[in-house]
Amino acid sequence: MIALKALVFDVFGTVVDWREGVARELAAFLARHAIRDMDAHALADAWRRRYQPAMEACRSGRRPFTRLDVLHRENLEAVLLDVGADLTAIAPQELDDLNRAWHRLDPWPDVLAGLHRLKTRYIIAPLSNGNVSLLLNMAKRAGIPWDAILGAEVAGAYKPQPEAYLRTADILGFTPGEVGLVAAHNNDLQAARACGLKAAFVPRPYEHGPHQTTDLVPAESWDIVAADFVDLARQLGC
Amino acid sequence: MIALKALVFDVFGTVVDWREGVARELAAFLARHAIRDMDAHALADAWRRRYQPAMEACRSGRRPFTRLDVLHRENLEAVLLDVGADLTAIAPQELDDLNRAWHRLDPWPDVLAGLHRLKTRYIIAPLSNGNVSLLLNMAKRAGIPWDAILGAEVAGAYKPQPEAYLRTADILGFTPGEVGLVAAHNNDLQAARACGLKAAFVPRPYEHGPHQTTDLVPAESWDIVAADFVDLARQLGC
Repeated sequence: MIALKALVFDVFGTVVDWREGVARELAAFLARHAIRDMDAHALADAWRRRYQPAMEACRSGRRPFTRLDVLHRENLEAVLLDVGADLTAIAPQELDDLNRAWHRLDPWPDVLAGLHRLKTRYIIAPLSNGNVSLLLNMAKRAGIPWDAILGAEVAGAYKPQPEAYLRTADILGFTPGEVGLVAAHNNDLQAARACGLKAAFVPRPYEHGPHQTTDLVPAESWDIVAADFVDLARQLGC
Repeated sequence: MIALKALVFDVFGTVVDWREGVARELAAFLARHAIRDMDAHALADAWRRRYQPAMEACRSGRRPFTRLDVLHRENLEAVLLDVGADLTAIAPQELDDLNRAWHRLDPWPDVLAGLHRLKTRYIIAPLSNGNVSLLLNMAKRAGIPWDAILGAEVAGAYKPQPEAYLRTADILGFTPGEVGLVAAHNNDLQAARACGLKAAFVPRPYEHGPHQTTDLVPAESWDIVAADFVDLARQLGC
């Protein structure tokens, strides 16, 4: 068994509760503009639904690699247009700031305690489709103690492209087998395992709200299944 | 005056004392192999003299961008051959480990105290020609509290190439004028200023040992001149 040297983490959903954080800022925005017939959580979900298709345009080569802040900003305008908002009445700077709601997401309650313990024995870093400045601002605001911040633009690829996993391991100075991905999403772990990384599943049953039906249980016999980050630290002897 | 948002730091010489750290490990290596007629500090200087020419091969396009760990490893073999060492008698793994002496350098005495203060108000990150894993291992060992670690391979360019400064500012999410470079080397500050960054000079009069003649004083009227990192924090109101 190769010794694990580094743990890399999916961020949106696994480390932070993107839905509540984005909905919180959208609710303030909707109230400010007196848009009353739109639910902030539904709008957060609609914004997020455009996430994978936007990255897919980059993965497929239809457009060059474009950082997530730009994709999020385009998607924000699209969802607001979808719900009939009058974009000419909203200052671009306000949309820029609203777009940075993704920089201001809060970690799940177990995250900081777990990461501080894991950091004593492992290198810990995000392996996210977020860009560096998004992950950096998020970490600085929330006190997430990453050892390094590698955004998707460092690998130049979006998960689940193999390059996202392989280049991250290489940049960290490790073989794929020395790196473990921690994620709440079975498909992310499947792609990581296919690249030779170890896989740790931590369910986040409320990522998509109270009626979530996906990723409630491990889809394969992952190397580790942990209840949360504190349990993960305990299982790894930290 | 644009408000400064991030401070980026030259590392070798400015943050860490590379000469003493490398000489310390070389001395142990020379003793182990009973190589008696070579001074460890002279060998450290010889190793470092090959640093700029090796990067210049990448800057000029004679070879593709190659991370510093690889250049250091090639240069180590070259300097050992220069002093007549029998490389066939040395295990490659021992040279690999000796090469990682650059991952195990100690900060100057004021660095950690100054950075902890600067971090309260600014984003702090290295802007070094070192690669990510080198900077990461160095920070983890020494407790350097970087907010992000961006190595030269993230920018894909070696200082003083403009791309090294401009891409780093862009990845951090700032305009060049919102970023200040802190360095003990006037030529590094000149290149940063030419790209629009702010420039802070912190002299390191013993970087090259007790007889240093270069970079003892600021060569231009830099935006800030500080005695050390604690003085820099004080001047910046941290």
